[in-house]
Amino acid sequence: MSAENSLLVVGSVAFDSIRTPFGVRERSLGGAALHFSVSASFFTDVSVVAVIGDDFTEDDHQVFRERKINTENLQRIPGGKTFRWAGEYGYDLNTAHTLDTQLNVFAEFNPQLSAAAQQSPYLFLANIQPGLQRLVREQVKARFVAMDTMNFWIEGAREELLQTIAVVDALLINDAEARELAQESNLIRAARKILTMGPQMIVVKRGEYGASFFTRDGFFATPAFPLESVFDPTGAGDSFAGGFMGYIARSGSTGKIDDHTLRRAVIYGSVMASFNVEEFSCDRLRRLQAEEIQDRFRQFKEFTHFEV
Amino acid sequence: MSAENSLLVVGSVAFDSIRTPFGVRERSLGGAALHFSVSASFFTDVSVVAVIGDDFTEDDHQVFRERKINTENLQRIPGGKTFRWAGEYGYDLNTAHTLDTQLNVFAEFNPQLSAAAQQSPYLFLANIQPGLQRLVREQVKARFVAMDTMNFWIEGAREELLQTIAVVDALLINDAEARELAQESNLIRAARKILTMGPQMIVVKRGEYGASFFTRDGFFATPAFPLESVFDPTGAGDSFAGGFMGYIARSGSTGKIDDHTLRRAVIYGSVMASFNVEEFSCDRLRRLQAEEIQDRFRQFKEFTHFEV
Repeated sequence: MSAENSLLVVGSVAFDSIRTPFGVRERSLGGAALHFSVSASFFTDVSVVAVIGDDFTEDDHQVFRERKINTENLQRIPGGKTFRWAGEYGYDLNTAHTLDTQLNVFAEFNPQLSAAAQQSPYLFLANIQPGLQRLVREQVKARFVAMDTMNFWIEGAREELLQTIAVVDALLINDAEARELAQESNLIRAARKILTMGPQMIVVKRGEYGASFFTRDGFFATPAFPLESVFDPTGAGDSFAGGFMGYIARSGSTGKIDDHTLRRAVIYGSVMASFNVEEFSCDRLRRLQAEEIQDRFRQFKEFTHFEV
Repeated sequence: MSAENSLLVVGSVAFDSIRTPFGVRERSLGGAALHFSVSASFFTDVSVVAVIGDDFTEDDHQVFRERKINTENLQRIPGGKTFRWAGEYGYDLNTAHTLDTQLNVFAEFNPQLSAAAQQSPYLFLANIQPGLQRLVREQVKARFVAMDTMNFWIEGAREELLQTIAVVDALLINDAEARELAQESNLIRAARKILTMGPQMIVVKRGEYGASFFTRDGFFATPAFPLESVFDPTGAGDSFAGGFMGYIARSGSTGKIDDHTLRRAVIYGSVMASFNVEEFSCDRLRRLQAEEIQDRFRQFKEFTHFEV
């Protein structure tokens, strides 16, 4: 992959404490930028912009090394502690209940990008404070920019969020958040309304129900991969975004990205999310093989295909 | 269409009182057998087994006449009152809250089938007491039999329901009911478990999230049609079943129904349900044109297709 295909992500790297009906994991590697970059690294060269404390050990760093993720823009704060999140899931596994958040080094995060990072043609703004997302967006001469967000910012920083949404090409958001952002209970109308806020496209992530993709003149939808065991949903949305953006970056379109590429990107996003939830943290993705991705992509085709 | 393609349905014909966030309708034509037969009548010859009171007027009968639905096995009870159901939907439109049920003539329903009806090659057992479903199933030498049910029977008549499920080819059921029947929170495992109870196939109806189709060695899934306005979900599941069974009956397979036919049947079911919810009662289906069905079927192909 050349610099023409490189993908930059800004977001959190965290230690998670996760409780699901199937088990408990303490100090689990997490954070949106970490899940995203591990996922995207199967498709293209990825560089991560984030902040960590000095409790982030050499052993923790191994995840970036083994996936060949560029950490030139990963700031380490001496004496600081890495961002921590504690959450819990019930049997439906669709909604995370936050038990505790400790921003730690993230409270003062002021992303500074290297000259190379500023030249990245593809940029993903993972879920962080929308003002910070815009600050990074303005530093990067990207060809294609996507972002995620969450209910916390929709409710608490709406105006700032709208300003950020206005300067990206794609918004990736979950079902309930799309309805909340648009203040509209029907998802299709919600998506149409969000498209008037600036982005050219919206990907609505619907968990076990799949994903829907909206552009001003098009619509695409896919069911989710039929998993018999969903172990830990943490990072599913970020892995989805990693597959989506990673595939788009690999395609390297210099003009408007064509509809075929975008549809395949939605499927690759779905594929990566489906692997992510099979185990705690990014454990499953760390031992994933490229052939497994291709195999599951073909299965998506097989179980959604019908003849006219 | 010849007798080789004819489809028999047993179930309720009712007057509904429906309240949605978008309006109120009193004495609306409803009942599972009515919604099913109107939908299926676009595909094949349909005959309905049900019971009505003498409050079911000539004007009400018009729905059967205009759709050329055979009412030879529609019993009219002199002095009786037609089944009545009153229900309400909130903004999410996914769950009906029953306000009132008056069984009336349905309380004594004892389906008697004409000799012709007993020869029907295709049979649908709409949602009624599972013992009655089995009674009808035993009277009909059908080639292919499908059924629906609901939480009320899963909770209150489980053993009888399991006996009925054991003697059908296909179970059509909604998402929550599939999980409840299998006592399993993961839908895929729930479906696999139900397949051990007798049926060769299960269609899981997921409302705005689409439908999933399971056989012992296969899986197919489709998102729902992207509707900007869902007006009244009453009868959506029955319209789905009507499209699914109507298309299968029209195909007239004499042996095992092939996978391509079954997948298209799931899509036709989804198409018919999507029209049904656009207006109160079966108003939309009563003025539906065959070309509109084909057009929406093609749209399903368009918005789910991607290139490998």
